[in-house]
Amino acid sequence: MAVVDVLRPGFVQLRVMDMAQSLTHYRDRIGLDVVATGADGRVYLKADDEFDHHSIVLRPADTAGMDVCAFKVLDDAALDRLTDRLHAHGVVTQAIPAGEQLGVGRRVRFTAPTGHVFDLYADIERAPAGPMTDNPHVWRHEPRGMAPIRFDHVLLYGDDIDGAADLFTQCLGFRRVEEVETPDGTVLATFLSCSTKSHDIAFVRHAEKGKFHHCSFLLEDWNAIGRAADLMTRYEIPIDIGPTRHGISRGRTIYFFDPSGNRNEVFAGSYDHYPDHPRRVWSADQVGRAIFYYEGELNDRFMGVVT
Amino acid sequence: MAVVDVLRPGFVQLRVMDMAQSLTHYRDRIGLDVVATGADGRVYLKADDEFDHHSIVLRPADTAGMDVCAFKVLDDAALDRLTDRLHAHGVVTQAIPAGEQLGVGRRVRFTAPTGHVFDLYADIERAPAGPMTDNPHVWRHEPRGMAPIRFDHVLLYGDDIDGAADLFTQCLGFRRVEEVETPDGTVLATFLSCSTKSHDIAFVRHAEKGKFHHCSFLLEDWNAIGRAADLMTRYEIPIDIGPTRHGISRGRTIYFFDPSGNRNEVFAGSYDHYPDHPRRVWSADQVGRAIFYYEGELNDRFMGVVT
Amino acid sequence: MAVVDVLRPGFVQLRVMDMAQSLTHYRDRIGLDVVATGADGRVYLKADDEFDHHSIVLRPADTAGMDVCAFKVLDDAALDRLTDRLHAHGVVTQAIPAGEQLGVGRRVRFTAPTGHVFDLYADIERAPAGPMTDNPHVWRHEPRGMAPIRFDHVLLYGDDIDGAADLFTQCLGFRRVEEVETPDGTVLATFLSCSTKSHDIAFVRHAEKGKFHHCSFLLEDWNAIGRAADLMTRYEIPIDIGPTRHGISRGRTIYFFDPSGNRNEVFAGSYDHYPDHPRRVWSADQVGRAIFYYEGELNDRFMGVVT
Amino acid sequence: MAVVDVLRPGFVQLRVMDMAQSLTHYRDRIGLDVVATGADGRVYLKADDEFDHHSIVLRPADTAGMDVCAFKVLDDAALDRLTDRLHAHGVVTQAIPAGEQLGVGRRVRFTAPTGHVFDLYADIERAPAGPMTDNPHVWRHEPRGMAPIRFDHVLLYGDDIDGAADLFTQCLGFRRVEEVETPDGTVLATFLSCSTKSHDIAFVRHAEKGKFHHCSFLLEDWNAIGRAADLMTRYEIPIDIGPTRHGISRGRTIYFFDPSGNRNEVFAGSYDHYPDHPRRVWSADQVGRAIFYYEGELNDRFMGVVT
Repeated sequence: MAVVDVLRPGFVQLRVMDMAQSLTHYRDRIGLDVVATGADGRVYLKADDEFDHHSIVLRPADTAGMDVCAFKVLDDAALDRLTDRLHAHGVVTQAIPAGEQLGVGRRVRFTAPTGHVFDLYADIERAPAGPMTDNPHVWRHEPRGMAPIRFDHVLLYGDDIDGAADLFTQCLGFRRVEEVETPDGTVLATFLSCSTKSHDIAFVRHAEKGKFHHCSFLLEDWNAIGRAADLMTRYEIPIDIGPTRHGISRGRTIYFFDPSGNRNEVFAGSYDHYPDHPRRVWSADQVGRAIFYYEGELNDRFMGVVT
Repeated sequence: MAVVDVLRPGFVQLRVMDMAQSLTHYRDRIGLDVVATGADGRVYLKADDEFDHHSIVLRPADTAGMDVCAFKVLDDAALDRLTDRLHAHGVVTQAIPAGEQLGVGRRVRFTAPTGHVFDLYADIERAPAGPMTDNPHVWRHEPRGMAPIRFDHVLLYGDDIDGAADLFTQCLGFRRVEEVETPDGTVLATFLSCSTKSHDIAFVRHAEKGKFHHCSFLLEDWNAIGRAADLMTRYEIPIDIGPTRHGISRGRTIYFFDPSGNRNEVFAGSYDHYPDHPRRVWSADQVGRAIFYYEGELNDRFMGVVT
Repeated sequence: MAVVDVLRPGFVQLRVMDMAQSLTHYRDRIGLDVVATGADGRVYLKADDEFDHHSIVLRPADTAGMDVCAFKVLDDAALDRLTDRLHAHGVVTQAIPAGEQLGVGRRVRFTAPTGHVFDLYADIERAPAGPMTDNPHVWRHEPRGMAPIRFDHVLLYGDDIDGAADLFTQCLGFRRVEEVETPDGTVLATFLSCSTKSHDIAFVRHAEKGKFHHCSFLLEDWNAIGRAADLMTRYEIPIDIGPTRHGISRGRTIYFFDPSGNRNEVFAGSYDHYPDHPRRVWSADQVGRAIFYYEGELNDRFMGVVT
Repeated sequence: MAVVDVLRPGFVQLRVMDMAQSLTHYRDRIGLDVVATGADGRVYLKADDEFDHHSIVLRPADTAGMDVCAFKVLDDAALDRLTDRLHAHGVVTQAIPAGEQLGVGRRVRFTAPTGHVFDLYADIERAPAGPMTDNPHVWRHEPRGMAPIRFDHVLLYGDDIDGAADLFTQCLGFRRVEEVETPDGTVLATFLSCSTKSHDIAFVRHAEKGKFHHCSFLLEDWNAIGRAADLMTRYEIPIDIGPTRHGISRGRTIYFFDPSGNRNEVFAGSYDHYPDHPRRVWSADQVGRAIFYYEGELNDRFMGVVT
C-alpha cells in the first residue's frame, strides 16, 4: 500500500431540522455518544469504539443533507502532500482554520466534480472516553441502541462521478473496488477504498450535483442488523429497505431515515479488500442484484430519494 | 499508512506427519480447498475467499511445526525496497527461486532474531477458482466445514522477541498494536500489524527459539465459532480451549490441534487498527485476561505446548 | 395442558411437477434427507433432527399444492378419542389404511370447513438415521443446505376459517394464539397451537376453498435465516419476501418458492406459548405489520399467490 | 400429551446475603425487571417476556441457597388433581395461603425425596408490564443486560434422585428426557420435562440432601450467550464455565455466580422434546461430554460447589 496518506472517513456533518428529535434518533436509537455541543448549536457525536473526538456532526438547519464529509489523513506532512497533489490535479482548495469544529485542527477543503464538499485533516483531539487501552475491556460502556462500532462511509449522488473517481484515485490514493458498468463502459456507480475496507466512499451517477444518499454505521454482524431492525420498528423509525444484503460489498444492511429525511445505513459483514485484489464489476442489467442482493431489484426510493 | 509495502501474511508452510489425516483435517473439517499437490508431496490449499493460489502448504515430515511464514508484498519494487531495508538492518537474506512452491514467484528469505524463517514475495498465481469478480455471488462454492474466510495470521514463540519486533516495525512497516509488559518494561508478547488488522503476526517470549504456537483462520463471526466447536466435538478434533474470547485483539476464538499436534485457531470479531490508534498495553499480572478474556487465566497448554 | 392428544404437525404431502428439480430443491438446497421412494413415485424426506420416518412427501402431479397435512397424535387411544370428538362435532371421517404411505400406520382423515384435507395418525416408523440417543452428538450428519431442524407448520387459505378454528379448538385441543380481527370481530387470520409453539397451523380468510399458502421449516436462529437467504440467491431460488420478521409469532422468516410454485418458509425465533397466556390480537388496519413486521405492509403476493 | 397439568417452573425463591449487590446482579446485569418489594424485604423480579407477576424472588438471608421452586399448574382443578396424586403417592403436603408471596394464590407445598421444597399453584396476578398483546411489538421495553427471555429451570443436587424422579413422573406428569447412567443402571443425573422443553427440572445424585446447583435463564441464541460473557467479564461477575455447550440438552450455556454464591446459568439453543421421543442416555464414562460438550470433562466446581 505504498504511500497511502488518507486513513479513513473521519466525520460527516449533516443538516438536521429538529435537534431534539435528531438526538433521540442518533443518540438513543442508533446509540452514538454526545461528546460536545458547540456555541453555534452543532452537536458532536461518536460511536463507542472510535478514538477521535467525533465522527458525526449535526448542524441545525432548514433543510436536510450533508454539509461536508471529511477524511482523516496520516499526519500534517501527508496533509501537505495531498494538498499539493490536489493542486497539481487542478483542484482549488480552501483552508479551514483549526477550531471551526470543536477539537479539529486545520482542514483543507475542496469540491469534487460531483459538487460534494470534502475536507482533509490530520489533527483531531482524542475523545474523553474512547476505547480503553490499558488492560482494556471489550467496551467501556455497555453498548446501547443499534450498538454502532464506527461511522463507516458515505454514498453520494452526483453527475460527474468519473471526475470524482479520478480525483480520489489519482490524488488521494483510493482504489476502485467495485463498479457498475453499462455495455459501453459508462460507470453508473463506483465504490472506492483507501484502506482494506470494501469502500470508504461511493458515488452513484445522478442528474443533479451534490446529493447525499446515506451515511453508514458499522455494526458487528448480521445479528446486530436484526436487532437494529427490531429497534427501528419498535420506535417507528422509517425503514427504507432491509434487513437485506448488498451484492456490491456483500454488506448486510438496513437503509432507514433520520427525522429530517437523511438516509442512514447500518452495515456489517463486508469483505476486506487489498491493493492486489481485482476490481469487481457488475453489468448494468444486474444492478438490482448489485444493490439489493436478495430482492434482485431496486426499490423506487433507491434512485429517487436523496437529500 | 505511508509506505506500507507488506500486504499480509500470504501463506504458511506446515510440517505434517500423516497426509491423509491432515487432509481430512484441513480440507474436510476446516474446509479449505485443495488447489494442487506437488511432485514432492506438498499439498497446497486455500480458503474460499482468497484470490491467491494458496495460503496453506502441508509438507510431509517426521515432526510437526512451521517451516516458513511468507508475506505477500505490494509488487516487485516493494520486494526490492524491503530487501534493501533488511540488509541495512544487518539481516542476511536468501533468494528462493520462483517455482520452489507451485505458483509462487521469487522469494526473499530471512531468519528473524527469534529463529523463525520468513519469506517475502510479490508474485503468486491466481487460484483457479477464487472469489467471483463478474456480477459476483457472495460465494462461488457453498462454504463447508468451519467455513474459513482466509488464513489470517501466525503466533510464534521465541527468545528474542524484541529483536523480531524491531525488525518487523523498522524494516517491514509493521506497527505495535497490543503488548503485554512487565513492570520493568519487558515485553512478554507483541502483536504487530501491517494493515488494519489487529495483528498480522504475534510473538510470545519463550526460552527456546523458533517455536510455532498456532496459525489462525478467519471465520465470519461468533456464530461461525460456535458451529466450528460443534464440528470439532463431533469429529473428535482435540480442542485446546474455547469457544472463548481474547482480551488482546478481542478476537472470538477456539484453539485446537491438527492430527500432527500443530495448533490451529479459528478467529472472528477483532477490531480494526489504524496507524493513528494508540498502542494497547496489558500488565503482566493481567496476562490471563489478556489471553483468555472470559477465563481470566492461562491454561497450562498455552505456555507449554508448541511445535 | 389437560388432555392434549395432538402432538404436532407430522407430515405434509405436496404435489410437485418435476421430481428431479424438486429433489434438488428440498434435498440439496433446503437440506432434507431422502428416506425412501415409493413404488408410486412419491419421495419421502425428513429433517435431520426428526425421529419419525418422514415429514415431507413429494407426490408427482400435474399441478402444485397440498394433498394433505397430517398430525401425529399421542397414541392409538388418543386417535380413537379424537375420532369420537370429530364425529360428535358432525365431522365425517375416512379411514386410511396403514401402508398408504411408507412407514405410516392407520390414519383418520377429515376435511375441514375450509376445504383442506387433514389426517390424524399415531403410528409411524422411526427413521433409520434419526437423532442420536446413546451418548448423542448434537447432530449425526453435518447439517447442509439451509440446515432445517424440522417441518414446523403450514399456513392455509380458505373461506370458512371460523369453522376450521372451531373444529381445531373444540375437537383437537388447539388454542387460539394470535388472530387478526376487523372492528366487527371478523377474524381474518388465526394462528392455532396444540403445543407450546406459537402456531402449529394457521388459516387466512380467502374467497376460495382449500388453498395452500406455505409449509414452514424451523431453522436455528436469525443467523441461519441469513445463510438461507445467501443460498437462495446463489442458487436462484425465487424469494417471495425476506429475510424479515413476522409481527404475528415474532418469527424471523423468508418466504420462497419451490420449482412447482409451492411456497416454503424458513422460520426461527418465535416465542413459546402456554395455555395460560392471553390471546394476542391484531386489528385489521395493522395487518401489514402483523405479517411483515419490518416492512409494515403486505406485498401483492402474500394475498394473491397460493397453490 | 394426555393430562399434563403442570405448565412450567413458575418461580424460584433464592436466599441472598446483600440485597443491593443482588439487585445490581439480577436487575442490571442479568436484566430482570423489579416488579415489587415486599414488606418483609423480599424483592420480586421477572424477565421481559413473562406474563406472570414474577419468576424470581430474592429473600434477604444469612446463607445462600434455594428456599423453594414453584410450578404453575393449569388451573385450580388441576391443583386439586395433583394434590390428590401426591397424597396417593404418600407425599405429605402443606397449604401455603394466598398472599404469602405478593400476587400469588394458594400453594400446595411438598418436600421431594431429595430434600428440596416445591410448591404448586394455579393463580398468580399478571405483571403490570408483561408482553404486549394488542398489536404487539416484539418487546415493550428495549432488552438490557443479558436480555433474559424467562426463568427456565433449576438443577438440584440431592441423595434420593430416584425417588424424586418417580414423584415427578408418576404424580406430576413429567417425562425422563435425558439421563446419565452407570453400567449397573444407577441414574446419576436425570433431566425431566413437563412440556416440550428438554428439561423443566433436573436432579444430580449427591451425598447431601437439598442442595441448589443453579437456576437458569433462557436467552435468545448463541449470540446472546456471547454478549452475556462480555458483560460478565466487564462487570467482574465470576464465571464458573462457558460459553460452552451441554451434551445433555444441547444447550449453549454459561454458568456464573451471583454475589451470594448462588450459581446462575444463561441458556439457549436446546431442542424440543415430545412425549413420543425416545429417552437419551449417557453412560457414566461419558459424563464429561454430557455436561460440557466441548471440554469433554467436568471442572471441579461442577460437582463440588452448591448452595
